[in-house]
Amino acid sequence: MTAQLSKKSEAWSARFSEPVSDLVKRYTASVFFDKRLAHADIQGSLAHAEMLAHQGIISAQDHADIQRGMAQILTEIDAGRFEWLLDLEDVHLNIEKRLTELVGDAGKRLHTGRSRNDQVATDIRLYMRSAIDDILALLRDLRLALVDLAEANADTILPGFTHMQVAQPITFGHHMLAYVEMFNRDAERMADCRRRVNRLPLGAAALAGTTFPIDRERVAKTLGFEDVCHNSLDAVSDRDFAIEFCAAAALVMTHVSRMSEELVIWMSPRVGFIDIADRFCTGSSIMPQKKNPDVPELARGKTGRVNGHLVSLLTLMKGQPLAYNKDNQEDKEPLFDTVDTVVDTLRIFADMATGISVKPDAMRAAALQGYATATDLADYLVKKGLPFRDAHEAVALAVRACVDRQCDLSDLSLDELRGFSPLIEADVFSVLTLEGSVAARNHLGGTAPQQVRAAIERVRKLLQD
Amino acid sequence: MTAQLSKKSEAWSARFSEPVSDLVKRYTASVFFDKRLAHADIQGSLAHAEMLAHQGIISAQDHADIQRGMAQILTEIDAGRFEWLLDLEDVHLNIEKRLTELVGDAGKRLHTGRSRNDQVATDIRLYMRSAIDDILALLRDLRLALVDLAEANADTILPGFTHMQVAQPITFGHHMLAYVEMFNRDAERMADCRRRVNRLPLGAAALAGTTFPIDRERVAKTLGFEDVCHNSLDAVSDRDFAIEFCAAAALVMTHVSRMSEELVIWMSPRVGFIDIADRFCTGSSIMPQKKNPDVPELARGKTGRVNGHLVSLLTLMKGQPLAYNKDNQEDKEPLFDTVDTVVDTLRIFADMATGISVKPDAMRAAALQGYATATDLADYLVKKGLPFRDAHEAVALAVRACVDRQCDLSDLSLDELRGFSPLIEADVFSVLTLEGSVAARNHLGGTAPQQVRAAIERVRKLLQD
Amino acid sequence: MTAQLSKKSEAWSARFSEPVSDLVKRYTASVFFDKRLAHADIQGSLAHAEMLAHQGIISAQDHADIQRGMAQILTEIDAGRFEWLLDLEDVHLNIEKRLTELVGDAGKRLHTGRSRNDQVATDIRLYMRSAIDDILALLRDLRLALVDLAEANADTILPGFTHMQVAQPITFGHHMLAYVEMFNRDAERMADCRRRVNRLPLGAAALAGTTFPIDRERVAKTLGFEDVCHNSLDAVSDRDFAIEFCAAAALVMTHVSRMSEELVIWMSPRVGFIDIADRFCTGSSIMPQKKNPDVPELARGKTGRVNGHLVSLLTLMKGQPLAYNKDNQEDKEPLFDTVDTVVDTLRIFADMATGISVKPDAMRAAALQGYATATDLADYLVKKGLPFRDAHEAVALAVRACVDRQCDLSDLSLDELRGFSPLIEADVFSVLTLEGSVAARNHLGGTAPQQVRAAIERVRKLLQD
Amino acid sequence: MTAQLSKKSEAWSARFSEPVSDLVKRYTASVFFDKRLAHADIQGSLAHAEMLAHQGIISAQDHADIQRGMAQILTEIDAGRFEWLLDLEDVHLNIEKRLTELVGDAGKRLHTGRSRNDQVATDIRLYMRSAIDDILALLRDLRLALVDLAEANADTILPGFTHMQVAQPITFGHHMLAYVEMFNRDAERMADCRRRVNRLPLGAAALAGTTFPIDRERVAKTLGFEDVCHNSLDAVSDRDFAIEFCAAAALVMTHVSRMSEELVIWMSPRVGFIDIADRFCTGSSIMPQKKNPDVPELARGKTGRVNGHLVSLLTLMKGQPLAYNKDNQEDKEPLFDTVDTVVDTLRIFADMATGISVKPDAMRAAALQGYATATDLADYLVKKGLPFRDAHEAVALAVRACVDRQCDLSDLSLDELRGFSPLIEADVFSVLTLEGSVAARNHLGGTAPQQVRAAIERVRKLLQD
Repeated sequence: MTAQLSKKSEAWSARFSEPVSDLVKRYTASVFFDKRLAHADIQGSLAHAEMLAHQGIISAQDHADIQRGMAQILTEIDAGRFEWLLDLEDVHLNIEKRLTELVGDAGKRLHTGRSRNDQVATDIRLYMRSAIDDILALLRDLRLALVDLAEANADTILPGFTHMQVAQPITFGHHMLAYVEMFNRDAERMADCRRRVNRLPLGAAALAGTTFPIDRERVAKTLGFEDVCHNSLDAVSDRDFAIEFCAAAALVMTHVSRMSEELVIWMSPRVGFIDIADRFCTGSSIMPQKKNPDVPELARGKTGRVNGHLVSLLTLMKGQPLAYNKDNQEDKEPLFDTVDTVVDTLRIFADMATGISVKPDAMRAAALQGYATATDLADYLVKKGLPFRDAHEAVALAVRACVDRQCDLSDLSLDELRGFSPLIEADVFSVLTLEGSVAARNHLGGTAPQQVRAAIERVRKLLQD
Repeated sequence: MTAQLSKKSEAWSARFSEPVSDLVKRYTASVFFDKRLAHADIQGSLAHAEMLAHQGIISAQDHADIQRGMAQILTEIDAGRFEWLLDLEDVHLNIEKRLTELVGDAGKRLHTGRSRNDQVATDIRLYMRSAIDDILALLRDLRLALVDLAEANADTILPGFTHMQVAQPITFGHHMLAYVEMFNRDAERMADCRRRVNRLPLGAAALAGTTFPIDRERVAKTLGFEDVCHNSLDAVSDRDFAIEFCAAAALVMTHVSRMSEELVIWMSPRVGFIDIADRFCTGSSIMPQKKNPDVPELARGKTGRVNGHLVSLLTLMKGQPLAYNKDNQEDKEPLFDTVDTVVDTLRIFADMATGISVKPDAMRAAALQGYATATDLADYLVKKGLPFRDAHEAVALAVRACVDRQCDLSDLSLDELRGFSPLIEADVFSVLTLEGSVAARNHLGGTAPQQVRAAIERVRKLLQD
Repeated sequence: MTAQLSKKSEAWSARFSEPVSDLVKRYTASVFFDKRLAHADIQGSLAHAEMLAHQGIISAQDHADIQRGMAQILTEIDAGRFEWLLDLEDVHLNIEKRLTELVGDAGKRLHTGRSRNDQVATDIRLYMRSAIDDILALLRDLRLALVDLAEANADTILPGFTHMQVAQPITFGHHMLAYVEMFNRDAERMADCRRRVNRLPLGAAALAGTTFPIDRERVAKTLGFEDVCHNSLDAVSDRDFAIEFCAAAALVMTHVSRMSEELVIWMSPRVGFIDIADRFCTGSSIMPQKKNPDVPELARGKTGRVNGHLVSLLTLMKGQPLAYNKDNQEDKEPLFDTVDTVVDTLRIFADMATGISVKPDAMRAAALQGYATATDLADYLVKKGLPFRDAHEAVALAVRACVDRQCDLSDLSLDELRGFSPLIEADVFSVLTLEGSVAARNHLGGTAPQQVRAAIERVRKLLQD
Repeated sequence: MTAQLSKKSEAWSARFSEPVSDLVKRYTASVFFDKRLAHADIQGSLAHAEMLAHQGIISAQDHADIQRGMAQILTEIDAGRFEWLLDLEDVHLNIEKRLTELVGDAGKRLHTGRSRNDQVATDIRLYMRSAIDDILALLRDLRLALVDLAEANADTILPGFTHMQVAQPITFGHHMLAYVEMFNRDAERMADCRRRVNRLPLGAAALAGTTFPIDRERVAKTLGFEDVCHNSLDAVSDRDFAIEFCAAAALVMTHVSRMSEELVIWMSPRVGFIDIADRFCTGSSIMPQKKNPDVPELARGKTGRVNGHLVSLLTLMKGQPLAYNKDNQEDKEPLFDTVDTVVDTLRIFADMATGISVKPDAMRAAALQGYATATDLADYLVKKGLPFRDAHEAVALAVRACVDRQCDLSDLSLDELRGFSPLIEADVFSVLTLEGSVAARNHLGGTAPQQVRAAIERVRKLLQD
């Protein structure tokens, strides 16, 4: 009877009068994607076996046999020698069957007091926890790279845009720090999600708990979980953490897509604010002159991928009655692909950030076009006593005159300027310079180089912890 | 010039040579949905004015005038006497124009050192913070109602289902607590989201900060914000908090939809586990006998609504360059409707939970059908020394025999049972009872009534805090 | 008993022992959004009554009474005098109750042989059919406006971009026609969807048909439906047409969003390819110089809105058992808002297309930057006998040399060019001009002005039909 | 120089000063998923080469060489001997490089007058066309299987449900035909989509057309396309057809999910309307008695997958400027997975439909519970002259009395019935039978067995065409 699991269906087939059809086998099998959970599965099984032995549910010898068998299986998997069988449906039965081959009855005792329902929930949580830790590290790398870029460009002036129209002068350092803030929040969200991932479902068994005298808190401690899931029905059917993770991942990708959009526009020849190193670009099979910013374009496109996976998982769980339903097997591929997408994208962006060359001349030229200091002029008038709304009106008329004459505000003479408000005096010209404008926004969160340097300091400190 | 804002476009029209077309006015106006931000807008303006006065940017007299004017406007709004004008585009300009009518130049000075970009971001955050607090209170009400239902049914046995097939006996109290766990997590997520909502964007002005010597931390303190947004570009363009909120809301609705699915099935006559009070049901215009569980059905349908809004917001932000773009105006309606949907649904569910009558006889009858105690028999054999996999096999054969004979496991005689395993003895019959099965799952998170009562205790304590 | 419907619940309340709670009433009522179906509802009821009379199910007098009553109700609704009551839940019961007030028993006979389930399905289809016809007309207007713009710019050269990098010279007329092609397909899809909308569900009654000798084909003919729904269960529960419509609408908005993205970029000062008339733009409350392309930005944002509604409806229908469930009431708001969004957007874009001014000088300057004619040089070499891959290689080296020397290909001397391939002769310079490049792509679908004019001809013909 | 393509980047690398990094190579490569387009790619290349030769752009010898080389490559691919290289990035360059190895300069001439942009667009369309044809055939198989099931159960009575409450008796045949109607519409939509897929982009080259005298209509004819894409910019950037396909696929899966929901509920022991053959079910690793309807559960879950892919593609295209951007590479995986999911699901459902056993006794018992014939009684009263609303009221009171007495309407005596309306006479009892109720709904689309048989006839005829 040792060979009973040589086909997967033999885990339950005694109740059935005909075997599962081949088409069904392929449709329902998960082993070809869930084998990525193998390490987590073994880790979980070892903690479970340790507890079973400690509680006297299995013998010390069984425990030792299971440890020995699992060590061998780990070696086989890592060496690529483990034979994954479709007939055994999933990662769990593949490993259990091999264990039973290797160590006999001890292997058949491993499943005591648990079910695949709580087993897979535990595996996914272990996997997710590790994926989140990887992502947190990559988010840190990316922010450090952006902070370096910001520091090198704390004084580099470019036009800040709203509605893609020139708004006010800003520094490139300040602009990069806006993305750092976004990735700060992403890290916060991932850490919050990790707390909810890091709870132990094992012990819920199929859905109701088990009749064996298990010690769930012991298993939680062994596996480094912060808490146990407090209701067995919820433990096996909860996939909130996967959805919450995908939502947090969708925000990471949203931020990446915004940065990508800017990189692509900035590298377009009419703008020409930056260049991206050749090693991140590709060319064209037909147009010999092309150098395309493939990485940000692709990353922007991959936003859709992660948004889609989020929708998949929400759709999946909608209206599912308790407790476990087979629908839930569909949680894995979207989740795995989300992890891969975010990890690959963050890694390549942290690297690419070091390959961005800034073109200060093009930025400066752009900032001089579009009346970027009009607000400064209005503020100037307010400081001379005009109510803001009246100041706004006066400057708008001045800009309109400049548009008609195709000149900048600073090209107007003092007399001409005074035509729009008699409050204007000779000191006005200093507020119309780019440097003056930028330096004047010198408060917490403002674009003044002094503030940019302070913000860099703050982020570096934050990332040290 | 006091009347300058009598049409909205006059806030910026001096630069333009032709007025906005009526079609465009209607397409771009937001006042008919953003007027819900009026209280937040006034609250934010008052804090801004207080800081301007404290910093000497406006006079004490201006500050007093603004306070007086705003008090009057609040009265007018609350009394429904405030006239909202499409021509003034949004809530901000409608209020500012009225303020200027009421108090003259002080009103025109209010916008000093800020922009609509940071103003609206502040308003939304104030609104969201309050909405989250409402939702947290309703989540608490709902959990308390479910805990009461659980306590009244800590011993009521029904079949636990997986794959909609009878799995193992559980208690109805345990089942209700599964939902309590879900709503616990929802409350955690809402609280996490609140921390990120509760940061002050004001002071970012249009995108770069302002040239006035503002004190952002003072404003944050006045408004009860925990922190300020640390980068002005990010402050005006960030809508992460709205997306994170909608994702958390989608999970709330996912949990509601799962409960709804069960309520609807349980109330279907073939199942008949519960009844829902007439006041939550409606009838049919054609079929006189119908009593339909409209509330849970509608709530299930509303899941789609919230999922859709989440997708709207993610699509909205995808690929937007910094900083503010008009696209962002589209953030409000999905957000507002999400708040309304979640608030209404939680309120009605907290109420409806008290209108659920449980039918223990129907539940018990169902639990006796479907071999719910087969796992108990397998566990029994394991305790007698059989490896779990072999025990599973033996019981599967017994079940198959029962299916053929259309009887239950407990209908088999001891001799017949021993035919499947010689380890079976007379004590087997106690493990085949529903009460025995349920009571045996007596560990943290298990379905035993003792555990259910402990879990109720724990949740009540949690909700006291 | 005439007043029996004075509260909605009285349509079914005799079976109930307690009235519906106020909270539930508001949660489940639809009248405040479904009253937009009033005209369709009356149109459908009149066709139903006509058939009932023709079949002898109601008397000619009843039919005449119903016609008279409905005429009066229509007048009341159109004059804004009809009182819509929450207590009567939906548009159907509001109208039926008023009818009964006006004409007595005939009003109570109108619902013979139908149910609200088939009634509302009919109403929505009538509404949708009309909405699609509006959209088809607007898609035509927009295409005509774009074709005019294309014709005026059949020879205007600008750089064609791939990856936002200069690729090859194209004409602005050709570029506009790309959008015309997209809107052509949108019109095709809307027309396909219309065929599936235009089928009659009435006669399905609650779900199974009716015991009265109805003539569904007669009703279909009266209402202009092309076919009847052939299965009553499907007829009342089918919302495919709403989903298909939203998917087609999402593609319309996707096309609008792509055009919007380009308009916004083109109007950005560094690019400056176009200007949009002031009446489609707005300014800033703080920056006096701003002129923002609000309409395309907002339209781009509204893409999210429609994508979200599509997801709402798909989520709504997922896993719904047959036949009608209350969830379906949630189909209306997403659908109505999708119609409004698409109609408003197309109307404003058709108008705005006439307000786009093209700046040929800026376009030309951009086309001269970025080696737009490199492919022409490669093609030239191929025509001289070099395999394409080798030609590509030679030109890539020439471009790299130009990048290093910051010059254009046409700035190289014949000798220098021959350094990259001895096949190059004096006739090369004509292929390096923008006009030569554009004119050479002279085949069906190519950018040559001759082809652009032929394509305009073709579209105008198509739109005449 | 024959080996120039031995690394992919060599298709364009002459312009670059540093090679693409390995990380970037993996991030941007598509060969491991787009190699599924190999057959389409070769088919397209052969048609292109034939046209080039016919137009005299390449020699007859080159054409013959290309044909010979491609034949060999096809053999290698089909035999699994073709070596796919990451370094060559995608399916196109992998095949072209091998072709050049095999036939030299002719291989390098193949790319004359085209670009990868129009090449890949052509490949996807060829692939999609074939996928749609597969899906159409499977939709036909599934409908035929359902029609057989319907025919066998044209007289089998079960309760029709609305709101999961018993509504009116229907036949199981009628119920199955509701799904046939849904799949009829799916087939219509797929056919409509196919028309828009079946248009040739080739000849658009990179984005503007080509300078070679190509004949696009010749290529279209060779490849069986119905039309050519009429604008080159649109041709390379259009992915409408992929989105439209995914939307149609989402509706297929929505229908499958609705059927699945019903199968799962029907197989739940309290309902017990059907059984599904063992070969489509699986068991439990812990509960020996379980037989789970895995296939419908999994199919229901896979709805989320396809909805998610639709969202991915819509997000991907949102706001993309013309013409081709690298984002578009992200179109393939969602599309391929959608095809696989729909194909596998339809295949298994067509098979599973033959494995459904109907349990008429359980269905009948359920139909006798829940006052399914109440509407018949109301209709009876209407035929006796009572207005429908008054009849509805009288029957509602009768039902309420039965609920109180826990009996059925047919259990009431004639006198008791007359207590609710004096119009009731002895002939009432025939309308209260299930058979009478079902037979009476005898009009187009109604549930009467006669109508079911007519509908089966109609569908069989439709599927013959």
